[in-house]
Amino acid sequence: MPVYNPPLRDMQFVLHELLNVSDELKLLPRHAEIDADTINAVIEEAGKFAAEVVFPLNISGDTEGCKLDKATHEVSPPSGFKEAYARYVEGGWPALSTDPAYGGQGLPIVLNQCLYEMLNSANQAWTMYPGLSHGAYECLHAHGTEAQKALYLPKLSSGEWTGTMCLTEPHCGTDLGLLRTKAEPVPGAPEGTYRLTGQKIFISAGEHDLAANILHLVLARLPDAPAGSKGISLFLVPKFKAAADGSPGERNPIFCSGLEHKMGINGSSTCQMMLDGAEGTLVGQPHKGLAAMFVMMNAARLGVGNQGLGLTEVAYQNAAAYAKDRRQMRSLSGPKEPDQPADTIIVHPDVRKMLLTARAYAEGGRALAVYIALLIDKELSTDDDDERKTCADEVALLTPIVKAFLTDNAWIATSHCMQVFGGNGYVKDYGMEQFVRDARINMIYEGTNTIQSLDLLGRKVLGDNGAKLKAFGRHIVEFVEEEGTNEAMQEFVNPLAELGDKVTKLTTELGMKAFGNADEVGGAAVDYLRICGHLVFAYFWARMAKVALAKKEEQGVGGDPFYTAKLHTARFYFAKLLPETAGLIRTARSGVAPLMAMDEALF
Amino acid sequence: MPVYNPPLRDMQFVLHELLNVSDELKLLPRHAEIDADTINAVIEEAGKFAAEVVFPLNISGDTEGCKLDKATHEVSPPSGFKEAYARYVEGGWPALSTDPAYGGQGLPIVLNQCLYEMLNSANQAWTMYPGLSHGAYECLHAHGTEAQKALYLPKLSSGEWTGTMCLTEPHCGTDLGLLRTKAEPVPGAPEGTYRLTGQKIFISAGEHDLAANILHLVLARLPDAPAGSKGISLFLVPKFKAAADGSPGERNPIFCSGLEHKMGINGSSTCQMMLDGAEGTLVGQPHKGLAAMFVMMNAARLGVGNQGLGLTEVAYQNAAAYAKDRRQMRSLSGPKEPDQPADTIIVHPDVRKMLLTARAYAEGGRALAVYIALLIDKELSTDDDDERKTCADEVALLTPIVKAFLTDNAWIATSHCMQVFGGNGYVKDYGMEQFVRDARINMIYEGTNTIQSLDLLGRKVLGDNGAKLKAFGRHIVEFVEEEGTNEAMQEFVNPLAELGDKVTKLTTELGMKAFGNADEVGGAAVDYLRICGHLVFAYFWARMAKVALAKKEEQGVGGDPFYTAKLHTARFYFAKLLPETAGLIRTARSGVAPLMAMDEALF
Repeated sequence: MPVYNPPLRDMQFVLHELLNVSDELKLLPRHAEIDADTINAVIEEAGKFAAEVVFPLNISGDTEGCKLDKATHEVSPPSGFKEAYARYVEGGWPALSTDPAYGGQGLPIVLNQCLYEMLNSANQAWTMYPGLSHGAYECLHAHGTEAQKALYLPKLSSGEWTGTMCLTEPHCGTDLGLLRTKAEPVPGAPEGTYRLTGQKIFISAGEHDLAANILHLVLARLPDAPAGSKGISLFLVPKFKAAADGSPGERNPIFCSGLEHKMGINGSSTCQMMLDGAEGTLVGQPHKGLAAMFVMMNAARLGVGNQGLGLTEVAYQNAAAYAKDRRQMRSLSGPKEPDQPADTIIVHPDVRKMLLTARAYAEGGRALAVYIALLIDKELSTDDDDERKTCADEVALLTPIVKAFLTDNAWIATSHCMQVFGGNGYVKDYGMEQFVRDARINMIYEGTNTIQSLDLLGRKVLGDNGAKLKAFGRHIVEFVEEEGTNEAMQEFVNPLAELGDKVTKLTTELGMKAFGNADEVGGAAVDYLRICGHLVFAYFWARMAKVALAKKEEQGVGGDPFYTAKLHTARFYFAKLLPETAGLIRTARSGVAPLMAMDEALF
Repeated sequence: MPVYNPPLRDMQFVLHELLNVSDELKLLPRHAEIDADTINAVIEEAGKFAAEVVFPLNISGDTEGCKLDKATHEVSPPSGFKEAYARYVEGGWPALSTDPAYGGQGLPIVLNQCLYEMLNSANQAWTMYPGLSHGAYECLHAHGTEAQKALYLPKLSSGEWTGTMCLTEPHCGTDLGLLRTKAEPVPGAPEGTYRLTGQKIFISAGEHDLAANILHLVLARLPDAPAGSKGISLFLVPKFKAAADGSPGERNPIFCSGLEHKMGINGSSTCQMMLDGAEGTLVGQPHKGLAAMFVMMNAARLGVGNQGLGLTEVAYQNAAAYAKDRRQMRSLSGPKEPDQPADTIIVHPDVRKMLLTARAYAEGGRALAVYIALLIDKELSTDDDDERKTCADEVALLTPIVKAFLTDNAWIATSHCMQVFGGNGYVKDYGMEQFVRDARINMIYEGTNTIQSLDLLGRKVLGDNGAKLKAFGRHIVEFVEEEGTNEAMQEFVNPLAELGDKVTKLTTELGMKAFGNADEVGGAAVDYLRICGHLVFAYFWARMAKVALAKKEEQGVGGDPFYTAKLHTARFYFAKLLPETAGLIRTARSGVAPLMAMDEALF
């Protein structure tokens, strides 16, 4: 059976030593009271909940899956999911970072980030149920009417009710402009009330028995809607219509008509939903639904990146434990434990390479994910408009990187960690193959990783002539200059600076090419995102190395070996992972022609 | 539901236009009669069998899996598997390339290669049942006594009985030197008869009801066996002891005690086997079992590479069909079909990139796999000792590349092809995620891909001071020189020559490093194998481009568009896949230190 130990020490390193989160938070009126002890206490409790309550349900949830009662349209998630959710609500976890005006604890997003990393490590499928509620909460908080907010936000915040995103239809996922679900005004009902008819698919947590009610955020077309993506509106459609006192009332005809059978996340109910005249209220402005939904989608994209991070961490932990225990063959450089029948497999360089790949991706991803959470805290809490804009821009730039780079890395890392187990990795008992199957969805949902790359290169980078990228690049340039005279840092800052220059040059080249042929963006975007992902990771790994070097010097012989491990992992990253960019830059530069030359009929 | 069309045209291209197989076979006494028409007729029939009989059982076999009756120890594979196997036997397919002395048809291995590529595309799990028999056949053919051969080979050849390889035990897979299964002489029985006791795991087709008997090739230790891998002997242990007339007799106590629940190939029975004093006969010399088993293992390794090839092809076909049908978004360079609600997704450059990756890996893999099959035909049939040695050496060099490179490519390709389907790729109905799950085992069994890379770099390349590599390199050098004056070929031969030079330099460097520290081999081997895989692919892609260019010139306007597609795919390969080597060469050169520096306890 797999193990999971909440990576509290590394989280504390990122929070306190790398990012000085408590000092940063002190500058924000809303979080001025948060100190390191509070942060540590919260993540420790969160880790216990993840490891003790949610993790034990991971394999059983995968094996059992969800069941739909076709007569009642009710869905039963796997055994134990409901009880674990009840404990989650009891513990106040849904309200951790929500607005105190609606019953939230108002703690910083960085804490919610750490909570969710650990929940995802413990059980990605289970975490989908509370996870979707955050996006629904954000969306209603930003675009709901006062009445909607007063009625629904406390329920989402407490976790009494959960939320969903109903976007996809059978004929459209990426291209929501094609959607057909209709919303028609209800004669005699209060203004803003509509009846919705249509079919939605791939609705995560669309139906389940964990919560008393489910709030569906549904994209649909009003009768007078223009065609395409400019004619989409957003509606709130509760499973049970809410009475004014907040109690669930009459059942609304939005039904689960089928469950998807999937490669992974089998414990998560992925529902086909029929809307048969279900009553809903408009959220935000008519025909502006896509923009409103994007609030939810951006939160969800970061959440998916965090799923990749969580799986990378738990897969690493298990592979490392196995590699230190399993004995097979001798070290090529001579037996390491001659009195044993064989050496442990961690003596083999390629086993170490697979482990360190996962470790470097987990720790680099954690630094980036907490960093972006802190940016969001600043964006939401600062009084300074310029700072808010600066933070929002940086979040916008980094979001597609977090989503795509962390989930692609998780695919690589979980597969490597499974490989460390040899044949045992392929059988279900050890739990390793489940991490791989679960990790695969993260590259697809909330916008495929190709879509993320187009968002990055087309919209976030070329869309503003590189302004957001340059702003982030300034952090790198400043860091490289600061460390320019620090001899011990040369092995890190030199390749970082070199890659920074190459990205600048590549961006200019691609911008010019795209000016002539917009397809050039599509031809290079996926390579470009991965190059930028490495640039961001190289920056954080160099910064982490700096902290580790300083601590080692300070502590001397007998110091905390954590910093030694951090430094070795940084060196591994620069030696073995960063060089992937050499090939990617070549393919990105080779242009779109080799992709477009072949006639469609010849495929 | 997925589709599968046997790629007969491309097979014919490889067989007749690229490799001139019938001319080559004419030089071999055993195959002098084979002409192109016979070859084409056989692969056409093979394709029909694969597509019509085996392919329809692929998804149902995955869903249904195998069942073990714990009382009788009998295993039922999924519905339809038995009937399909009966038709396979009826059609004479098991005997296609076996020795006429034992009832075989004696056709060249190249035909069996094509047959198995298509069976693997159609249903990898089903193909495991007949597939393992080939290794058992080869092993007995090479190492069996005359009596063993006379009794068992006709049964394997006809397919009446099937074979297995019983190597792995719970505590050892890669490291067979640790195995514990015992073989003890049976008092009073004919010499060479032993009773075997022990436990084996991961035995593919270890128990099933497709054939009347199962011949297990079992590794075990004799009472006087030295410790380690030098004390392992090979035994033939039939499920039912064979009477002298070849009819199955008394049940031998070798029982299936459990089935593995796996990530994929669910239709293949992966058995835990208990040997409870099962009677067997020695195959080959005492304590030389590992060497005898390697005959089987080398065949099996090529077979696993072929599984990767089959999955890459079928995944490509389905993704290409979907991409030409599914409409979503507009081309970035403007609508391609303005009268439709959206363009087909094949207009998007990254969709094409994913498709072409799979296509280039499938077609490159096919060329290599048929090439090596032809080498084996030459090795087995030539009268010239030098030629036999030359062919055997080249097969030895290429085997780990076929096994590891083709299966790693299949993992990449099936995942890309699944990604083309977006969310539909993740649900079981479309069959795409099954290709990915099935593909994953191929990187593990018959020696993990790490083991393959150590075999390549440590044994096959450095082990003979690069002699085998140089011999293969001469093909490349000759080709580059021949085409040196052909302007149209420069875009292919220049990067090929450049990579060839880099591999030569890298090999020398690694050899020198390994001299100082044997771990350097383990640190670079996986990168090195992938670089060599690309070198081999670049060579075949350049050769295929040459044929295509010549045909296009010959046929002029209105010629067969097959050659246009071949040329575009070649260009794609050189522009978008080969550059991966730039990063790999850097990581291979960065040495083993970044992998070994961290203390085991810190992982």
